[in-house]
Amino acid sequence: MISENQYFDGNVKSLGYETADGKSTIGIINPGEYQFGTAQKEIMHVVEGELSALLPDSEEWKLFSAGSHFEVPANSSFKVRSEVQTAYLCQYR
Amino acid sequence: MISENQYFDGNVKSLGYETADGKSTIGIINPGEYQFGTAQKEIMHVVEGELSALLPDSEEWKLFSAGSHFEVPANSSFKVRSEVQTAYLCQYR
Repeated sequence: MISENQYFDGNVKSLGYETADGKSTIGIINPGEYQFGTAQKEIMHVVEGELSALLPDSEEWKLFSAGSHFEVPANSSFKVRSEVQTAYLCQYR
Repeated sequence: MISENQYFDGNVKSLGYETADGKSTIGIINPGEYQFGTAQKEIMHVVEGELSALLPDSEEWKLFSAGSHFEVPANSSFKVRSEVQTAYLCQYR
């Protein structure tokens, strides 16, 4: 099963799948700023493009370019901002 | 615009977007074997999971794990085989 998801009026779309280590999604984020909530811990990898992220308990935006990643604890919220269409991998584990 | 595509009865799904360097797609390939044709040159990156590929002018399947990539020339065809759901990035350029 490959699940299809979209958020923010289609400005974020993702495809979900399963790995031996847990659920993952890959997705695209259109230019803009978005706030996400987490139910589980998330490891967000920037695959192509770049994202700025405002992580929980942080007051500063940090820039993450392709090949880098950041982690977000369960039951928290974070913001991301992109200036170009950006591809990501999100691992729930 | 984030385009949505699916192939092989939904066993391959992808999301398309634009970068400063050209078009890209990210997608998921379900377990199985699939043959693709190329119109443009493609650079295929394995993001999570692993793919075996039978490239044009090759008689041997080669295994590509997460973090590796292979290139396929324009106007050719190649086969991929996966044993697990595998995420990829395809750059057309």
